[in-house]
Amino acid sequence: MKALVLESPRKLVLRDIGLEAEAGRGEVKIRLNTVGICGSDVHYYTHGRIGPFVVEAPMVLGHEAAGTVVAVGEDVTGLKPGDRVSMEPGIPDPHSRASRLGIYNVDPNVTFWATPPIHGVIRPFVVHPANFTFRIPDHISFAEAALVEPFAVGMQAAAKARIQPGDTAVVIGAGPIGIMVAIAALAGGCARAVVADFAQPKLDIAASYDGVIPVNVRESNLQEEVARLTDGWGADVVFECSGAAAVWSDIAALPRPCGTIVAVGLPIDPVPFDIAGLSTRELRVETVFRYAHQYDRALALMGSGRVDLKRLISATFPFEDAVAAFERAAEGRPADVKLQICLES
Amino acid sequence: MKALVLESPRKLVLRDIGLEAEAGRGEVKIRLNTVGICGSDVHYYTHGRIGPFVVEAPMVLGHEAAGTVVAVGEDVTGLKPGDRVSMEPGIPDPHSRASRLGIYNVDPNVTFWATPPIHGVIRPFVVHPANFTFRIPDHISFAEAALVEPFAVGMQAAAKARIQPGDTAVVIGAGPIGIMVAIAALAGGCARAVVADFAQPKLDIAASYDGVIPVNVRESNLQEEVARLTDGWGADVVFECSGAAAVWSDIAALPRPCGTIVAVGLPIDPVPFDIAGLSTRELRVETVFRYAHQYDRALALMGSGRVDLKRLISATFPFEDAVAAFERAAEGRPADVKLQICLES
Amino acid sequence: MKALVLESPRKLVLRDIGLEAEAGRGEVKIRLNTVGICGSDVHYYTHGRIGPFVVEAPMVLGHEAAGTVVAVGEDVTGLKPGDRVSMEPGIPDPHSRASRLGIYNVDPNVTFWATPPIHGVIRPFVVHPANFTFRIPDHISFAEAALVEPFAVGMQAAAKARIQPGDTAVVIGAGPIGIMVAIAALAGGCARAVVADFAQPKLDIAASYDGVIPVNVRESNLQEEVARLTDGWGADVVFECSGAAAVWSDIAALPRPCGTIVAVGLPIDPVPFDIAGLSTRELRVETVFRYAHQYDRALALMGSGRVDLKRLISATFPFEDAVAAFERAAEGRPADVKLQICLES
Amino acid sequence: MKALVLESPRKLVLRDIGLEAEAGRGEVKIRLNTVGICGSDVHYYTHGRIGPFVVEAPMVLGHEAAGTVVAVGEDVTGLKPGDRVSMEPGIPDPHSRASRLGIYNVDPNVTFWATPPIHGVIRPFVVHPANFTFRIPDHISFAEAALVEPFAVGMQAAAKARIQPGDTAVVIGAGPIGIMVAIAALAGGCARAVVADFAQPKLDIAASYDGVIPVNVRESNLQEEVARLTDGWGADVVFECSGAAAVWSDIAALPRPCGTIVAVGLPIDPVPFDIAGLSTRELRVETVFRYAHQYDRALALMGSGRVDLKRLISATFPFEDAVAAFERAAEGRPADVKLQICLES
Repeated sequence: MKALVLESPRKLVLRDIGLEAEAGRGEVKIRLNTVGICGSDVHYYTHGRIGPFVVEAPMVLGHEAAGTVVAVGEDVTGLKPGDRVSMEPGIPDPHSRASRLGIYNVDPNVTFWATPPIHGVIRPFVVHPANFTFRIPDHISFAEAALVEPFAVGMQAAAKARIQPGDTAVVIGAGPIGIMVAIAALAGGCARAVVADFAQPKLDIAASYDGVIPVNVRESNLQEEVARLTDGWGADVVFECSGAAAVWSDIAALPRPCGTIVAVGLPIDPVPFDIAGLSTRELRVETVFRYAHQYDRALALMGSGRVDLKRLISATFPFEDAVAAFERAAEGRPADVKLQICLES
Repeated sequence: MKALVLESPRKLVLRDIGLEAEAGRGEVKIRLNTVGICGSDVHYYTHGRIGPFVVEAPMVLGHEAAGTVVAVGEDVTGLKPGDRVSMEPGIPDPHSRASRLGIYNVDPNVTFWATPPIHGVIRPFVVHPANFTFRIPDHISFAEAALVEPFAVGMQAAAKARIQPGDTAVVIGAGPIGIMVAIAALAGGCARAVVADFAQPKLDIAASYDGVIPVNVRESNLQEEVARLTDGWGADVVFECSGAAAVWSDIAALPRPCGTIVAVGLPIDPVPFDIAGLSTRELRVETVFRYAHQYDRALALMGSGRVDLKRLISATFPFEDAVAAFERAAEGRPADVKLQICLES
Repeated sequence: MKALVLESPRKLVLRDIGLEAEAGRGEVKIRLNTVGICGSDVHYYTHGRIGPFVVEAPMVLGHEAAGTVVAVGEDVTGLKPGDRVSMEPGIPDPHSRASRLGIYNVDPNVTFWATPPIHGVIRPFVVHPANFTFRIPDHISFAEAALVEPFAVGMQAAAKARIQPGDTAVVIGAGPIGIMVAIAALAGGCARAVVADFAQPKLDIAASYDGVIPVNVRESNLQEEVARLTDGWGADVVFECSGAAAVWSDIAALPRPCGTIVAVGLPIDPVPFDIAGLSTRELRVETVFRYAHQYDRALALMGSGRVDLKRLISATFPFEDAVAAFERAAEGRPADVKLQICLES
Repeated sequence: MKALVLESPRKLVLRDIGLEAEAGRGEVKIRLNTVGICGSDVHYYTHGRIGPFVVEAPMVLGHEAAGTVVAVGEDVTGLKPGDRVSMEPGIPDPHSRASRLGIYNVDPNVTFWATPPIHGVIRPFVVHPANFTFRIPDHISFAEAALVEPFAVGMQAAAKARIQPGDTAVVIGAGPIGIMVAIAALAGGCARAVVADFAQPKLDIAASYDGVIPVNVRESNLQEEVARLTDGWGADVVFECSGAAAVWSDIAALPRPCGTIVAVGLPIDPVPFDIAGLSTRELRVETVFRYAHQYDRALALMGSGRVDLKRLISATFPFEDAVAAFERAAEGRPADVKLQICLES
């Protein structure tokens, strides 16, 4: 099986890697159609590691995937060959304490595609547990279905925020995840999402969604804008998606009394955290780790037409140009939201 | 002051009633522009009572209102003459135990427009507490702003449901309140709302909203439709808005395990309630009483363009035709959602 | 293996039934020490069925159990031979949708001890999944540990109630489950639990717990007592544990505005449900089905000395007198809370 | 009226200050019996300020108070002369947005006793709003009732934690507030509270409560103790009550996956906050600001005998020795939990 293999930092090759397998009990075999490139894929490509996760042996990249079921194993009842599907890339131990509680994303034994030493799926076929494989609506393309994974991160953030219908959100950072969070927050009940960044091309993309109010922080003061829009009350929810440590210095000024901050972006080092300032208004801080129970919800929102992710696909590369796709991704063009690789021609 | 006065059942007259007043401390005086006709107004008109609330003296009708501030009393800071506003019709005792808890809608001492013996607002002017008077966005008309009141009922139901982003809702009954609930459920995070009724004109109106899946229960079996749409799992939330007792006999078959039923429609007599059936799937039942904290949220959703209520206005009558408006409302035409009276020409 | 076998209604025998088995992967083998008799065991004994569950073949009774691990299967890491344990009697499909969500108790594929056709555990040995087997604190006896199962029902009711520290609870019905619910409600944060019944011996047992306020409804009016104790505000939570349909006629008068009713007792037929009455104060109704995630919590409360269940053991019978134990249980003596069978001498 | 007046830092005098007043509408006049000394009182005494709050004019100290109603104003129905009461020291604007939402503690317009420029209540009489004045149970002494205020802080922390019955808590810091939090957490449903400090006298007092597990961090490693007690899973809730910035460096190691940290202690400067570490287990951080809706709950728990605070009173001083009481409080003796001043002999 020919796959996109990361041999070492900056060394990606399309080569045979021999991961052939058949669907066992409770599993399905899937022919991949589209795989998106995530920031983490790019970081493994450029640095060979993300924090404690080090690529020590050749590893296939890619975890944002959609394809077609080609075979089903024993005891699989909800899927059949020919079904078009999107797959959750993280597989927990179903018997763990976290899984039993329904918080399987924080099971320490999760294996996750393209997180060393687990291979990703920029390759023709993969075998996967049936119950982490989700049928996609007829009118949703493979390309859109491959966007479910990053959108699920936004959905998890929206779920943690415990949005009340009609809330006002602030989203700091208009990168791919910030945009996904803004879309999920609006779909999840917010009346409006104030999206802040200093890169206008990113803001322009965000602003194409109804309910997004873009704020270019080079030109405007975010705190003043939020105060103006909320009559001085503050935002119900603030999603920090930039990962910039400096944001945390004065983030407490943005939420309303008893409001919420959801930390989505991950600064490398500890950030300054003003407990007294947060306490004065009894703010709550939530964190997110990937997602749990979001694939079916994401697909329901996309299937009903309430969420349109298509416009976030900046470019699509054929499988044979996968390395070029990563080179472009590594450039970090401001107007690129999502690059995808199509494995079927 | 000339107002629309209910003298006795079926006897409505436009006559002077002398309710002149000026804004006191914390109050504003408002010139009414538009007042919608609610089912409760019609019921007082036709029956002279609703349960224990009996019209024993002439009473002005109407509580779904929007207008313009013409004067402000002492200590009012957030409003000024000329502001276009929508008003909450129920005023609680701010010192009551319920109010202190933030659940002011269940304060037994609430006074509510057009609930005897409190006069309603189909009249030129009213004095109202400033903090129950909400400024409306520039591009929202008075007619839309007068729809905030019934929409707030839908918002309250959506809030009680504790919607998770991407939920599937069922709304039983496509009358004005059922439609408002469906709109609020979708705006509040549902991916789709299966709306069930046997009157096709009502379903057609509901179906004009993205995400609504109409089910004519004369033609289809609701339970089967829900099962089909949810792969046999059931709906996350079921809003009962028909008030029909028979619905309760088998409502437990519609929600998913650990799902929710929100009772919005009010059957006159107790309904049969299958506790064992509900328990098998650990269902939860929520009830609603008017609303609390929904006006600003409703206006935020309308202001951001995420909720369009304009299409629900079936006809508008000038003040001098107010009695005719009530006669038409009493007809109960299936395609009529909301009739309104405009007091300013 | 000699077990207590229900051959047919009212025909219980101690006889060999041949259920020998060894611990497989993820399983442990347990030597039973103590098994309590539940109302459902008695009902199968006297009627041969509970609703749709019919005993159609000889079945071992008993599901409230504690014992000692004697062998562990492959991949079991948290338990070892000699560990004293209490076991959850219901085993879900770990791959089901309900299990993945963490609501495994409502998985339709749960198998539950002594629910036909699954054998119970009034027998010397059983093989059980390790992750539904819980180590018990050193100073907790087997007899107490066999009370975890019914206490878990009370814990589930307390969890569903979403108690706020200092709440006032009402518990209607002082049978074994009512008492368990009262204990769990108090341990779970209630300041006091008003326990209502007409059987004084049951109330006397309940009243032995600090925080219980017994109300004999032959002598006092429950609604008046609750009003008196709460300055007319009402109880935060009402647990209906009697299963008496008549209670539902006026239960809405007991909770405070926005209070909660938890339906624990299961009336056979639908009960009259006054939606308008419940709505006036925006009450919420929760239902429970067995329990999920309560064993470790129950054991923590018992282990820390905050919950004492010992006094609820009315009598203990040796294994050879198991039939006599059931005969006494079927008598339904008012002062009997829990009868147990000890399998080890 | 003779009161304990802070003239300037370290200068406290008992002198006449002339605050005579009568109960107006909705108010009561109270003769003070007991007032406790809070850490904030001591800090104003020693430093003349707390952060932005500066004592710029002579101010009466004290806000933890109980006494007897001596007169009631117009419209007061729930209280009468002779009632023994405890008073909430913070009075919000009942018409503010925060108050309407039920989160009156974060109303920026709250006036709070002994927070400049508002006088405290170490004086014979005070006039107070009736609905922030709570009747105390007959068998609760004035001394205990004056402990409701600091206990309410613990109650607020417990409420924010959203305790599930049977949770395991960790309380870092065994000062007066840490002890109050531990008591509230246990009363609020925790099975056990691991209380950590390095001062053994404080730990000994905490350990006198059932369910408290003291850990002297001079001798034991807190993280190891928590891991041992929870089989490596972690605590459900961690209450940080020490205010020590260093604690935040590794606090993320204490909670279980999806567990909660409640920040109660207020470090002066921002603390290092490891978002990535918190995110890996999806931890949640709550903050508290004083309390809302806790007085009646605290009194219910004390009244039912489930919470005993008497043992926390270290010494009681007569009014004429009030200055000596503050001198001792300023010493900060390790075994002193609460010093009180009794105004009636």
